[in-house]
Amino acid sequence: MKRQIGFIGLGIMGKPMARNLMKKGYSLKVYDIRNEPVEELVKEGAKRGYSPKDVASESEVVITMLPDSPQVKEVVLGKDGIIEGAKEGTILIDMSSIDPNVSKEIAEEVKKKGIIMFDAPVSGGEPKAIEGTLSIMVGGPEEKFEDIKEILTAMGSSVVYIGKVGSGNVVKLANQIIVALNIAAMSEAMVFAAKAGVDPEKVYQSIRGGLAGSAVLDAKFPMIVERNFKPGFRIELHIKDLKNALNMSHQVGVPLFLTTQVYEMMYLLKSKGKGGDDHGGLIKFYEELVGLEVKRQTY
Amino acid sequence: MKRQIGFIGLGIMGKPMARNLMKKGYSLKVYDIRNEPVEELVKEGAKRGYSPKDVASESEVVITMLPDSPQVKEVVLGKDGIIEGAKEGTILIDMSSIDPNVSKEIAEEVKKKGIIMFDAPVSGGEPKAIEGTLSIMVGGPEEKFEDIKEILTAMGSSVVYIGKVGSGNVVKLANQIIVALNIAAMSEAMVFAAKAGVDPEKVYQSIRGGLAGSAVLDAKFPMIVERNFKPGFRIELHIKDLKNALNMSHQVGVPLFLTTQVYEMMYLLKSKGKGGDDHGGLIKFYEELVGLEVKRQTY
Repeated sequence: MKRQIGFIGLGIMGKPMARNLMKKGYSLKVYDIRNEPVEELVKEGAKRGYSPKDVASESEVVITMLPDSPQVKEVVLGKDGIIEGAKEGTILIDMSSIDPNVSKEIAEEVKKKGIIMFDAPVSGGEPKAIEGTLSIMVGGPEEKFEDIKEILTAMGSSVVYIGKVGSGNVVKLANQIIVALNIAAMSEAMVFAAKAGVDPEKVYQSIRGGLAGSAVLDAKFPMIVERNFKPGFRIELHIKDLKNALNMSHQVGVPLFLTTQVYEMMYLLKSKGKGGDDHGGLIKFYEELVGLEVKRQTY
Repeated sequence: MKRQIGFIGLGIMGKPMARNLMKKGYSLKVYDIRNEPVEELVKEGAKRGYSPKDVASESEVVITMLPDSPQVKEVVLGKDGIIEGAKEGTILIDMSSIDPNVSKEIAEEVKKKGIIMFDAPVSGGEPKAIEGTLSIMVGGPEEKFEDIKEILTAMGSSVVYIGKVGSGNVVKLANQIIVALNIAAMSEAMVFAAKAGVDPEKVYQSIRGGLAGSAVLDAKFPMIVERNFKPGFRIELHIKDLKNALNMSHQVGVPLFLTTQVYEMMYLLKSKGKGGDDHGGLIKFYEELVGLEVKRQTY
């Protein structure tokens, strides 16, 4: 018989992930601070939870998918939190993207009650959450990994065990550092070329097959020249990830010179009201400085 | 009948490029400041040139493949230079990677003598120069492009017309900006992950298929974990390209915030005697700061 799963956090990512678990035959008890997505999933067969504590009290495995570290702390350790309802031996899988240090802290705290915690952040965004093809990077006790792998496979097509708890989020942050800097690289190069009078479309066609080629270039450049900044992945979420990366980097002592600057560029765009744009909109930082848009036009 | 071609600059790139032209049946007259590669090609059937002027006086098309802007200026416009020997209607194709402004300057100068100039820098490095599969980005008079396309196709598998003279080098510099920053992105992320206790190899396996994936990651990460910094493309050559990019960016007014920093990082490595390393060796800038090497090991 499939295990009883609790699912807390039914946002853009959490709701389709919970649905994919239900499709695979898991019984879900769900909770969110907003009533609407709970109603929706209850109609589809989920059980209504009234608090994280309530959800945890009836679940063998509890999954959380929340915005950031403070929310995870609150939902797990706060009043009416998971820790108050969970029985010894409960497995907690936090799939949020948070500060790896907070993952470790929470894991230590819940361990005192016999709760086993994994951090299992995802990448791939809403479309892959819906398809159930997320990439999932897992940190936690290796001997228990096989125990949760089947559950994670309902939501992701790549499920990789990394190391001890917190390491899933370290990988996620490394991923977000590279994505942010590759977007910045494309932005600097394309604004440079356009200002020098060269059609950026020709730049793209000439270089995409070589060493400058990247997933970022192929995914974001076509959006930029079409002036399409609909997310995708929002600048304000990338800011959150980079902030967590910088927190962690300060703790372990690695100066992230370039990440810091891209963080500041994104923050400026957010303060100008563009935080809801796709992160490809980072190019506007450069465009607005030089008074030029990288788009389809005659050069 | 195939045209008589002059080839000046028989270094790591120029020599195999000249050879590929000879294989396609072109008659070559060659020149280099060093005698050795000239001897070599003369044995293979090339005619010996005694100066750029001498080469130009007997060629319909003159190709130059030189280290940087000053050498191109000297060879084209200097004493015993191409301009002294070339007849009206001669086509000059400079395949060096140089400052786009210098390309424009030289083109204007030689135009006074009726010489038509293209800038046609390449990417792909020594292996692709040998195979004849370089990517070639061409700037110059569009109406004459078809005239030289066959010649360029002997050396490259991708020959793209970009725009007016200088634009080939703008694309090349955009390419080099992206490559440098993508290497820096990988370096920052991998040193961060390793210092946080995560095996970089697992980071690579988890992220390479997603939005963080890139040609740089696939080409350079395996070299880094094997501690193989044999070029490939040398840091000191990448410094030269970034310097040309910064010159050009100052002229057109685009602040290359991140490129500037990677330029400084590379310069520091060069001043420490690592200028001959592959540009993937940029990671050492971070590694040396934090006292850690990203390599295969137990984490």
